[in-house]
Amino acid sequence: MKTKKIISELENSGIDALIITKPKNLYYVFGIDSGTGILTKEKFVLFLNELDFEIYNKEESIIEKKIYKEGEIKKFLDEIKVLNVSIENVKIREFYEMEKEIGRKLHVSEIIENLRMIKDDYEIECIKKACDIAKKVIDEISGKISENKSEMEIAAEIEYLLRKYNSEGTFEDGILFSSGENASKIHAKPQNKKITGLAIMDIGAIYNKFFSDITRTFAVKPNDEEIKVMEFLRNLEFEIIDYINEGMKASEIHNFAEEKIKNFGYKFFHSIGHGVGLDVHELPFINKKSETIIRENMVFTIEPGIYKANKFGARFEDTVVIKNGRCKIL
Amino acid sequence: MKTKKIISELENSGIDALIITKPKNLYYVFGIDSGTGILTKEKFVLFLNELDFEIYNKEESIIEKKIYKEGEIKKFLDEIKVLNVSIENVKIREFYEMEKEIGRKLHVSEIIENLRMIKDDYEIECIKKACDIAKKVIDEISGKISENKSEMEIAAEIEYLLRKYNSEGTFEDGILFSSGENASKIHAKPQNKKITGLAIMDIGAIYNKFFSDITRTFAVKPNDEEIKVMEFLRNLEFEIIDYINEGMKASEIHNFAEEKIKNFGYKFFHSIGHGVGLDVHELPFINKKSETIIRENMVFTIEPGIYKANKFGARFEDTVVIKNGRCKIL
Repeated sequence: MKTKKIISELENSGIDALIITKPKNLYYVFGIDSGTGILTKEKFVLFLNELDFEIYNKEESIIEKKIYKEGEIKKFLDEIKVLNVSIENVKIREFYEMEKEIGRKLHVSEIIENLRMIKDDYEIECIKKACDIAKKVIDEISGKISENKSEMEIAAEIEYLLRKYNSEGTFEDGILFSSGENASKIHAKPQNKKITGLAIMDIGAIYNKFFSDITRTFAVKPNDEEIKVMEFLRNLEFEIIDYINEGMKASEIHNFAEEKIKNFGYKFFHSIGHGVGLDVHELPFINKKSETIIRENMVFTIEPGIYKANKFGARFEDTVVIKNGRCKIL
Repeated sequence: MKTKKIISELENSGIDALIITKPKNLYYVFGIDSGTGILTKEKFVLFLNELDFEIYNKEESIIEKKIYKEGEIKKFLDEIKVLNVSIENVKIREFYEMEKEIGRKLHVSEIIENLRMIKDDYEIECIKKACDIAKKVIDEISGKISENKSEMEIAAEIEYLLRKYNSEGTFEDGILFSSGENASKIHAKPQNKKITGLAIMDIGAIYNKFFSDITRTFAVKPNDEEIKVMEFLRNLEFEIIDYINEGMKASEIHNFAEEKIKNFGYKFFHSIGHGVGLDVHELPFINKKSETIIRENMVFTIEPGIYKANKFGARFEDTVVIKNGRCKIL
């Protein structure tokens, strides 16, 4: 199924061979997250180091696997006589090194990232389970958030609970939990100080390698403005979700949210959402410039937030899916 | 001090302006981990979004800060009339987008990454403290590793203890804890199954944003081969550390280790080490091809490992520093 889609994309874009090296893309295509993959219209080959070759070769699989040695990828490309070779969006140094290794000019292609935007039933089920774990943790922790606890203590408990409920890990940069003026920094890490004002909890679980991404804001010692902002954002999140339809441009969602926040008297400082899947941030990016069309089975976040420098921050976020043309919280 | 070194490197490499966008490099230069930095021989400027500008502007600082708006970076570069502009090793798409934004051809430069290789006293002290936290966790957890516990349970306890001892987080991909045949996959994640055979624990703490990286192997129900391999590796790690001198090529360290492992009857499947600092993996990379010269105040890992596909894995690792020409465990 995936194979067919990839081949069709290769054909449409006139690419003879696509080189993939990113663990998540390798896992998506091969079910193995190491090595270097070469995708052509005729076959997919995975080059592995000797150890991984031995480990994964025992597994039954239709994937063609080869042992990686210097020069092997060039030899393979020479043999199958490909002209137009592309690579994923890697770092420039890796790009140059690969050009040197294969003795060819490379182009950049995000075929795999684009295919990953549309989820199948299994993938949506995994993300749903990852959402369930995160929500369970939020429910359990919410009673413990008080002015007697430090941000770090709550962060430690959140991570412990995520593991307890069998999350395979959490965000690459750790969960976010910040309060008071610390929460006005959008990516603030938990600090060793007591919780105050509004507390933003931005967490994710991992289930069968798929992420969830959920944010809640808790009021510990809020002032009137903070309470109003919190209530506004919680309602706005649902309003946005209700506004979304298959077929609209992603930027329309962002602009809708930005306009609402502006009318409420604040600025909107980040984008309204991003895709979620094998990566916690993946395509589609839902921002002012995004030309992506919202389609059935896309999974992404909706996360309106308001921040007042050195005063407070508040944000609500859920992971959503497009089903039967409408947007549903997972 | 850092400023002087950066300016001198810009002069030596003939770069008129260096653009930096990676959070760790921004933090290294500006002490703030967001925005876009422009480094020239005359001044360093940090472009921030409006929210961050307001947050960080209250802090006293000699950094010149500007509010980022589209076109501002191009305008700034035009005003100071620079010709030769470089950017860090970013992804190709970001590279192309920046070329478009500033209307100039870009080169790639790793000046900041190269400077980050040599640590000052404060940085070494932070890494040392991050090592102390990790070792405290290892000591406390080691008595709990038994065949009655699952890999996931131990992983959860490790993360909890790291937080308890005030680590600011852990590895971006989570700590590693794997046992039995699972440990023969070098980057295996903890699984929901009981611990068996040899168990590899690869963990790191963060102190004042600096990482540590330490690995220990524990024997739960080992066979004779596994015990021999464990003992061999623990001794080998110390032998390698003793072998290292300022002035040698990094590849010499790798080759020394590889030869020893080969003579013991096994293959060596990964590189012997990597730099540690604001990133858990940074320069210098210590592998077969590394031309880097080992210098005073470099901090890196030494981590010999042996893996037998689908059978077992073992690895010992410490974070080390070069002091007075010799290599010392932190």
